[in-house]
Amino acid sequence: MENKISEDELLKKIISNEIPLYQIEKYVDPNKAVEIRRKAIATITNNQFTNINISSIDYSQIYNKNAENVIGIITIPMGIVGPIKIKSKYINNDIFVPLATTEGALIAGVNRGAKAINLSGGAKVVTINDEMSRAPVFTFDSIEDVDRFLKWLPEHEKGIKEAAESTTAHGKLEGFKATVSGNNVFLRFRYYTGDAMGMNMATVASEAASNYIEENFEGAKLIAVSGNMCADKKPANINSLEGRGKTIVAEALIKDEVLEKMFKANKKNIHNLNYIKNWIGSARAGSMTHFNAHFANIVTAIFLATGQDVAQVVESSGGYTITQERENGLYISVTLPSLEVGTVGGGTTLPTQKEALSIMGVVGAGQPEGSNSVKLGEIIASTVLAGELNLLAALAGRELGKAHQKLGRNK
Amino acid sequence: MENKISEDELLKKIISNEIPLYQIEKYVDPNKAVEIRRKAIATITNNQFTNINISSIDYSQIYNKNAENVIGIITIPMGIVGPIKIKSKYINNDIFVPLATTEGALIAGVNRGAKAINLSGGAKVVTINDEMSRAPVFTFDSIEDVDRFLKWLPEHEKGIKEAAESTTAHGKLEGFKATVSGNNVFLRFRYYTGDAMGMNMATVASEAASNYIEENFEGAKLIAVSGNMCADKKPANINSLEGRGKTIVAEALIKDEVLEKMFKANKKNIHNLNYIKNWIGSARAGSMTHFNAHFANIVTAIFLATGQDVAQVVESSGGYTITQERENGLYISVTLPSLEVGTVGGGTTLPTQKEALSIMGVVGAGQPEGSNSVKLGEIIASTVLAGELNLLAALAGRELGKAHQKLGRNK
Amino acid sequence: MENKISEDELLKKIISNEIPLYQIEKYVDPNKAVEIRRKAIATITNNQFTNINISSIDYSQIYNKNAENVIGIITIPMGIVGPIKIKSKYINNDIFVPLATTEGALIAGVNRGAKAINLSGGAKVVTINDEMSRAPVFTFDSIEDVDRFLKWLPEHEKGIKEAAESTTAHGKLEGFKATVSGNNVFLRFRYYTGDAMGMNMATVASEAASNYIEENFEGAKLIAVSGNMCADKKPANINSLEGRGKTIVAEALIKDEVLEKMFKANKKNIHNLNYIKNWIGSARAGSMTHFNAHFANIVTAIFLATGQDVAQVVESSGGYTITQERENGLYISVTLPSLEVGTVGGGTTLPTQKEALSIMGVVGAGQPEGSNSVKLGEIIASTVLAGELNLLAALAGRELGKAHQKLGRNK
Amino acid sequence: MENKISEDELLKKIISNEIPLYQIEKYVDPNKAVEIRRKAIATITNNQFTNINISSIDYSQIYNKNAENVIGIITIPMGIVGPIKIKSKYINNDIFVPLATTEGALIAGVNRGAKAINLSGGAKVVTINDEMSRAPVFTFDSIEDVDRFLKWLPEHEKGIKEAAESTTAHGKLEGFKATVSGNNVFLRFRYYTGDAMGMNMATVASEAASNYIEENFEGAKLIAVSGNMCADKKPANINSLEGRGKTIVAEALIKDEVLEKMFKANKKNIHNLNYIKNWIGSARAGSMTHFNAHFANIVTAIFLATGQDVAQVVESSGGYTITQERENGLYISVTLPSLEVGTVGGGTTLPTQKEALSIMGVVGAGQPEGSNSVKLGEIIASTVLAGELNLLAALAGRELGKAHQKLGRNK
Repeated sequence: MENKISEDELLKKIISNEIPLYQIEKYVDPNKAVEIRRKAIATITNNQFTNINISSIDYSQIYNKNAENVIGIITIPMGIVGPIKIKSKYINNDIFVPLATTEGALIAGVNRGAKAINLSGGAKVVTINDEMSRAPVFTFDSIEDVDRFLKWLPEHEKGIKEAAESTTAHGKLEGFKATVSGNNVFLRFRYYTGDAMGMNMATVASEAASNYIEENFEGAKLIAVSGNMCADKKPANINSLEGRGKTIVAEALIKDEVLEKMFKANKKNIHNLNYIKNWIGSARAGSMTHFNAHFANIVTAIFLATGQDVAQVVESSGGYTITQERENGLYISVTLPSLEVGTVGGGTTLPTQKEALSIMGVVGAGQPEGSNSVKLGEIIASTVLAGELNLLAALAGRELGKAHQKLGRNK
Repeated sequence: MENKISEDELLKKIISNEIPLYQIEKYVDPNKAVEIRRKAIATITNNQFTNINISSIDYSQIYNKNAENVIGIITIPMGIVGPIKIKSKYINNDIFVPLATTEGALIAGVNRGAKAINLSGGAKVVTINDEMSRAPVFTFDSIEDVDRFLKWLPEHEKGIKEAAESTTAHGKLEGFKATVSGNNVFLRFRYYTGDAMGMNMATVASEAASNYIEENFEGAKLIAVSGNMCADKKPANINSLEGRGKTIVAEALIKDEVLEKMFKANKKNIHNLNYIKNWIGSARAGSMTHFNAHFANIVTAIFLATGQDVAQVVESSGGYTITQERENGLYISVTLPSLEVGTVGGGTTLPTQKEALSIMGVVGAGQPEGSNSVKLGEIIASTVLAGELNLLAALAGRELGKAHQKLGRNK
Repeated sequence: MENKISEDELLKKIISNEIPLYQIEKYVDPNKAVEIRRKAIATITNNQFTNINISSIDYSQIYNKNAENVIGIITIPMGIVGPIKIKSKYINNDIFVPLATTEGALIAGVNRGAKAINLSGGAKVVTINDEMSRAPVFTFDSIEDVDRFLKWLPEHEKGIKEAAESTTAHGKLEGFKATVSGNNVFLRFRYYTGDAMGMNMATVASEAASNYIEENFEGAKLIAVSGNMCADKKPANINSLEGRGKTIVAEALIKDEVLEKMFKANKKNIHNLNYIKNWIGSARAGSMTHFNAHFANIVTAIFLATGQDVAQVVESSGGYTITQERENGLYISVTLPSLEVGTVGGGTTLPTQKEALSIMGVVGAGQPEGSNSVKLGEIIASTVLAGELNLLAALAGRELGKAHQKLGRNK
Repeated sequence: MENKISEDELLKKIISNEIPLYQIEKYVDPNKAVEIRRKAIATITNNQFTNINISSIDYSQIYNKNAENVIGIITIPMGIVGPIKIKSKYINNDIFVPLATTEGALIAGVNRGAKAINLSGGAKVVTINDEMSRAPVFTFDSIEDVDRFLKWLPEHEKGIKEAAESTTAHGKLEGFKATVSGNNVFLRFRYYTGDAMGMNMATVASEAASNYIEENFEGAKLIAVSGNMCADKKPANINSLEGRGKTIVAEALIKDEVLEKMFKANKKNIHNLNYIKNWIGSARAGSMTHFNAHFANIVTAIFLATGQDVAQVVESSGGYTITQERENGLYISVTLPSLEVGTVGGGTTLPTQKEALSIMGVVGAGQPEGSNSVKLGEIIASTVLAGELNLLAALAGRELGKAHQKLGRNK
């Protein structure tokens, strides 16, 4: 820490730009630094802050970890959905799910879907895949070098794996795949990362693997540790095809009488609506990976509540809502190919987010390792199922109602 | 409100499920309801909550507006980037930008990009388009009806417009476009919605327009007021082609010496990296609308800080980073075709979010109307530009550095 | 023509590379040139050609028009499908359709689909749009210039239109639309081109329009007359959304008894198969514009037979197969958003292709102008409908049959 | 063959629809049948055919193999490009390439590109992958069955492989991959198919494998042997990521002086044009797999000449054109991820197509097996490279020329 200076003087020097905003922590402790920085911004921008200062956060816990140049916090209301009856490998229980959102009617609607699922026997969930990816890109002088490199790679799998895993206690390199574009090779590394979402782990490991490659293959030049085939925080067909984070499927068979009673809808018009809206509509829009009604709403709200990396909603909200008319009701499933979640690291350790995780019993590392993040993923998938069911059934019920009215009018 | 009942009794009945969670507001005022509901969930899930209860929110202000079944809040740290020197139609100023995030190094990195932009003369921004869309889908018995409908539509533009605009004081129906898929017609309505992000406005107006159509065109049956060609909270080529929310371009010409001094990089290797990573990599991944490095990080952080609908990050983070080697430096631009933002409504009125908006001087409706949301969009685009520049230059500098080291080693 | 030289000497000089292959027409007439060039290639590559020489083509008719450096022809078998009963604005008739293909079982299968359609009352067809597009791209120094340009454009629509239309007797510029990417602007021009497919017409007109723009807007630099947003010979969401060539929908209501008798299938399993294969399967594959079973087979075969630009099959084969279970049968439609066809120009004037067109009564310009190419498009759409119906019903019938067998076995 | 009947009577009965068109071969030999069918169509449609009858085809050779209901042939002019200097694993030679097309200027342009390549030292080509895929889709009652199935699959790889390979002498099942969508599983089988394009082989083998699965896994129901994740005759990101047919890269380093002399262009403006047109333009159009200028033109023309399945141009024309400014010239590469070609089977045995193959020395099976189809693929890739180079350089030269003129004018 720099030599002592009074708070007032510090504030003045910040306002006059003699000391940059991001250096306040050099002079005072992080909590004080946040306060002074907030004051400085208030003065400079001619504002008064009476809300962004109110929180339970101890800034010394997050400094240089979750945020820099902090001036306070924002708060988002958090509500409860459920409980939802869920059955999976690790869950056989009724779970309450916290959703943080500012979008009115979302929680109420998802709650309604959850009720319909419960009345029909609950949701079944299966986790199919669990991996995090990072894809460095290398460049070469000529495709002849690329050709040699493609042959070299499988012969050096062990060295690459050792280099990658030397950086992590929990991560395992599950494999990698090369995509060639002219004289460039994208290597998509896939890691098992336990209860962590794993992006940082995958990045650090991939840097080590890339160094190994550059050092051992003459002519390979790393362009970037992320070559955008990862694909992080972008919608991408590759995430749908290969999976990223958790690949999860959830299903329920909703009874005819539940549809009728709760939504005034029937399986035939819900299925028809799903086909036209979520499949034909998404196809025509060029949505490519999002053949669903509003996965994003639910995924975002739980990501916010539980301290996930919210920017990953972009691909985590991708997925497919499939319906079928069955003899005894409406079959509905949601498939989420790339749901990126963790219960350790990132924002999961922040005070309020940790409490949200505790509602579902998935704070920190699971027993066995990795099971907590899988559980969280499966709870999200079940809640997404509830959200889809509710929206589709509500729309179908409304249109059916309107059609009946019109019919009445025309008599 | 229901007849009186003691708090203790209420709590018991909730825990025993005699009174559903979402009905507490029938018995007590919203602030008390949140407290009781939180207690109930704590008891049921065997938890203690000491953090999600701390906030400045008056729940009577958000009840039935932003969230239901509320039990408390989550808090997210908010830091400051900038100021960034921005020049556009409405801005000619140095702006501080609040980012709420839990991802370490993000704020510091963007701040670095902002500095490089400032040292090179600042960012220029242009807003090209400003519209919100909603796309109902109608079904018909036969394509002969569809054919008649397509001819009927332009003849009834006035009636449709009147029906839509009858529901809103601020919204204007700018036009609509039909997409035919067999016997189904998707109508994408486009609205000008002033300083509001406008999704709700567009939905209500489109419902009215849809009713008008159903009532006046025999044989048109509304399937859903959203037929997924909107396309809300989904990545979609249509949003890139037609625009949704604001379509904004920001650019800067970064001086050679700034690149060298701040990043140890040069324009040639940054341009090469951008081409291989953001264009070839994104293309190969099937990212389709996201030819950029990490728009999503910056968009998410500002959306969180300012009370935007965070689920809309999915398409708001779409866009294109374009670089060119110019004689006197690196030309870099970012194009955001579908940035959905507002300064009124939604989460923008929450206490902390409002203070975040106040930092940038864009609280509530602008003068002239609509200018505040445009300003916010342009500030976001400028900050995205800073984020892209920083990441690309940092990666380029690192690889260049490594190449030099290697060169040194090989001597 | 160059000074006389004997055929033998000419052949020798070609083989010894003294005279390049493409200059033979300088010495002899086109038909003789083809013969000599063929001999030269036979000699150089040590082959004998006894088949590529047999044709009715007069090479003087196609020299410098359809091909260069010609050595002969290839032949492709052509069969007949139908007749198909078609009803549209210009057609109310039973039409035989020629298909040129080397893929066994294709013609027989489509023929079967046509029969099923006829037995159910025929196909209805509607043409929704008819335009050809070309999209030059311009670059500018700064987005400030782009901003000015976007305002300049609508003010100079008349000048642009006049420039474009000055190059063509038949083409009409219907409109244009700008897409901004940083400092680059793509202008997608849309033309009505009558009975011509219109790509050449659109290119020449767009060059003239581009010249006008460069000359009248200081700072606009044309990069290429095709900026790939046209999008010619590439699959592209823009072609699906905006249409290219003809946008056509065809439908039929197939009677239950026809499905049962001809395919041993029923509407329920055909609809289910269509949903899973053509919608879920195509979505997961990232097919984006091709939610169908095999449009490409039928489109290719008719394009070959009728002298269309076969490379345009890429986008002309895009489209959507939609099924519904109706009370009295299976509703099936095909939507082809970008079917690029013509009856004048290109390969349509070649001897065999012209005879293929004559089978359908669509040789040359129609009465009224443009009607022949529309008719051809509608016939193709109807044949595509037959092809889709046949393949889906055959697959459904086969699986149903297998299921029944299995059921029998398990008894 | 049916009992004797005179030709005249046969013709009458066909015209009167007593004998269907497709049954003529029951009464007379295939060559006669074609003649009679042609006469019948001529009479019914009131036409005279003097061209579609002229060919060297013996219809008894193609009957029930390449086409049905045949009435004659169509002819397409075939020209010659090259020779192109090619270096790859199997080729080190100057190759003449036959192109069948009706699009004027195509052959001449590609020829020019070939010359530029030759003057710069020739093209290098590498084949990275060689597989054909077919993807059946199975449905299950519940995702619990799907979960069991995913575990069952790797345990029964041997049985599945044996079943698949029992149907083919040449094909090898290289592997398969499951994609789950709710209660449906798509299995993408990958085969090595030697010199055959292999689609039929893959289909027959996948049917056998599917039967094995249905018989051995209780609850698996085959929906269709093609579930559209193959993805055959459709553009699809999966084909780009996984490869289909041959995955081939070709490159050349074009000398500065060649660019200057032949095209009046330089590497800087060609690279800039390629970036803006083929990358930014294709991205904005939503082309997804086609980041190139006109692969489709060249691929189509060689497919036609050599008897390939022309409908497969849809995905075979996908690919990426990458340029770089290098010290001594323009580096240019083309990457074709899914080029589907064969030298045995399909249309390759037709008389004229066989002669086209003979020009390149790739008739029938290669030595070693598979090498002929690889050679053909590499020749196509080299020709595509020539086509891209020519078009980009010509466009760049033209615009440069125009810019110079304008500069002159402005003086």
